[in-house]
Amino acid sequence: MSALIKGNVIVGQSGGPTAVINSSLAGVYKTAIDRGANKVYGMLHGVQGLLEERVVDMSEHIKSDLDIDLLKRTPSSFLGSCRYKLPEIRDNTEIYDRIFGILDKLEIRYFFYIGGNDSMDTIKKLSDYAILNGSPIRFMGVPKTIDNDLAVTDHTPGFGSAAKYIASITKEVIRDGLVYDQESVTLLEIMGRNAGWLTGAAALATGEDCEGPDMLFLPEITFDVDHFMKKVTDLQKVKKSVVVAISEGVKVADGRYVCELTDNIDYVDAFGHRQLTGTSRYLAGRISREMGCKTRAIEFNSLQRCASHIVGRVDITEAFQVGGAAVKAAFEGETGKMIILKRVSDDPYICVTDIYDVHKIANVEKTVPREWINEAGDYVTQDFVNYVRPLIQAELTPIMVDGLPRHLRLEDA
Amino acid sequence: MSALIKGNVIVGQSGGPTAVINSSLAGVYKTAIDRGANKVYGMLHGVQGLLEERVVDMSEHIKSDLDIDLLKRTPSSFLGSCRYKLPEIRDNTEIYDRIFGILDKLEIRYFFYIGGNDSMDTIKKLSDYAILNGSPIRFMGVPKTIDNDLAVTDHTPGFGSAAKYIASITKEVIRDGLVYDQESVTLLEIMGRNAGWLTGAAALATGEDCEGPDMLFLPEITFDVDHFMKKVTDLQKVKKSVVVAISEGVKVADGRYVCELTDNIDYVDAFGHRQLTGTSRYLAGRISREMGCKTRAIEFNSLQRCASHIVGRVDITEAFQVGGAAVKAAFEGETGKMIILKRVSDDPYICVTDIYDVHKIANVEKTVPREWINEAGDYVTQDFVNYVRPLIQAELTPIMVDGLPRHLRLEDA
Repeated sequence: MSALIKGNVIVGQSGGPTAVINSSLAGVYKTAIDRGANKVYGMLHGVQGLLEERVVDMSEHIKSDLDIDLLKRTPSSFLGSCRYKLPEIRDNTEIYDRIFGILDKLEIRYFFYIGGNDSMDTIKKLSDYAILNGSPIRFMGVPKTIDNDLAVTDHTPGFGSAAKYIASITKEVIRDGLVYDQESVTLLEIMGRNAGWLTGAAALATGEDCEGPDMLFLPEITFDVDHFMKKVTDLQKVKKSVVVAISEGVKVADGRYVCELTDNIDYVDAFGHRQLTGTSRYLAGRISREMGCKTRAIEFNSLQRCASHIVGRVDITEAFQVGGAAVKAAFEGETGKMIILKRVSDDPYICVTDIYDVHKIANVEKTVPREWINEAGDYVTQDFVNYVRPLIQAELTPIMVDGLPRHLRLEDA
Repeated sequence: MSALIKGNVIVGQSGGPTAVINSSLAGVYKTAIDRGANKVYGMLHGVQGLLEERVVDMSEHIKSDLDIDLLKRTPSSFLGSCRYKLPEIRDNTEIYDRIFGILDKLEIRYFFYIGGNDSMDTIKKLSDYAILNGSPIRFMGVPKTIDNDLAVTDHTPGFGSAAKYIASITKEVIRDGLVYDQESVTLLEIMGRNAGWLTGAAALATGEDCEGPDMLFLPEITFDVDHFMKKVTDLQKVKKSVVVAISEGVKVADGRYVCELTDNIDYVDAFGHRQLTGTSRYLAGRISREMGCKTRAIEFNSLQRCASHIVGRVDITEAFQVGGAAVKAAFEGETGKMIILKRVSDDPYICVTDIYDVHKIANVEKTVPREWINEAGDYVTQDFVNYVRPLIQAELTPIMVDGLPRHLRLEDA
């Protein structure tokens, strides 16, 4: 096998991290080495770092099987990430010439990019440019995103662990909400600007030992604050502790985000943009003032994308697999493709990898289908739950050292 | 042994829960049964529920060894909790007569209360009243609180797991903060109104694979916003991702909480009181406006007291032990005491239980000693770390069912 592989490999990570994004990196690295790659480079901070020739030789940082297992369990993007969109090829060939010049200097033949929609756009453009200019370099996309909003693939690695984390802590917070014998409303604010997959995952808390959240509000459904207030008021009449999960991305009819309804401007970013946070606080304030009961606004925050202490084994295994499958496909001659996951069966859960034209994936956003949300628009259906349930199964124990999960740090390795 | 035990046992939980408070409940229940107790009652929502005669027969809800192990791993107070302070005996004997009337009706001889400062006040008053009135009922306190602010005892069960959770997610968030190649400041808001034990625990994230938080601000030290801004600005010059942990309870020189400095009044409780949250958001807003860099405000929120998916085994074991030790002591004749933990050695960690007069514990708040905070007032010392480190050691795996941690619910059992 190794005789077939000419040239070096480079891999990068792009966009927001997931708890298992480094398992895909491990999958790319290990499979490339096992299949005879000469050098495997990592680009620091994705294409943005590549443009500054900031690359590392991965073998200098991953030296043992233990390092591979630590890498899989390390949160955040090991190589660093970026949010960098390449221009259209027709608008600016200079930047492409620079990238290909750097790749040629490193004798790269295989380029892997682990990311979501924007990253697949990068793979699309680079593979197009290679074909247009007769470059032999092959470009493959490796899917990841907690948001699960990539098209064609059944789901994306990273989503399962985020869903497992959300369902687990939703169970804990629901139990916590029952501690005092008093009326209370708890609002759980969950990530997902346009797609409600993660908010819907809170429904998985429901089971023999947990009554689950009372309502779920996904960004796919227009949010009506008055209707919401009435529903919460009605619920409070029949149960003391009301727990509602709500997407950070819910919008009212005029198109504004709920978090933009507040007059508070405490928290704007460097460009003066208000950050997309505060939905639960705004609604908690309304409930507190209008209903007079105790409220709690709990933002599940960045932990949704970095809680590697409670990853799912199905998810982290699939994350590794898509990395390995991308290497296999590229080494066998594919380019301009992304690895997808194809579900053969829900129960027993069977899922295989396949390859798919990245042109049909890049820049397409997959939201929760309307038929997987109930008619009232405040919960997901059993079909939704059946779809997510297999993806949160099983655990991969953290490697605990001196009481804490151990990670692999680029500087250390 | 069983021949010695006359009458029934009752146990209650009071104050805020911890991730391991039910391990103490399991310790009381199992030890009482093993030592020949007839009936073990649980009061629902502590003394407040007892006054309404809301009690359950625990053996109807804990039927197997599996139930015991599920109970230990269940977050929130299994029996429900309350925040109820008994009046001084001299001011109102009627309420005491009612309580003792109910206890006599249930043929109670042993009363256990799992809680913090306020709960120990309850034990103190009830045991005093028993002695004053010749009641044979024995009253014992079982310590718990994530805040670690109980006097005399080396530490309190519940603190270790909260510290382990905080240190673990601090590691994850620090790693997450490095993902983009840009300047950013992350503020971690940690529980503890008057005592900085939990905020200090974020320092434990520091290790071979983690640089740790850059600064820690405990409520024991008066907070100076301008000084804070200058320190953050200086730090940002030497490192891109600055991470600061700050107690929700930090106050400025005039006595106001930092979260009270904001003009925002979105979020008041039923009594018009502003909730003690928003410290990190206020400071993030200042940093964002004045420094112009990306900021994140992350509230560690209720998960600090209910993240039973990552409890410490030292902690959950000690929580069980203090419950058992309270039963043993009461059965041997003690009353008006609390179980304390006495550390024999840091390394190897050796800790034993003892009993102590509850009069000297109730209503006393133990804060972090000044000498365990550095001179600048923005970090803890190595002595602090050495004190906490043994308490976060080892793990107790959750019992995972269908992908999620399984709990024991009172209604189910």
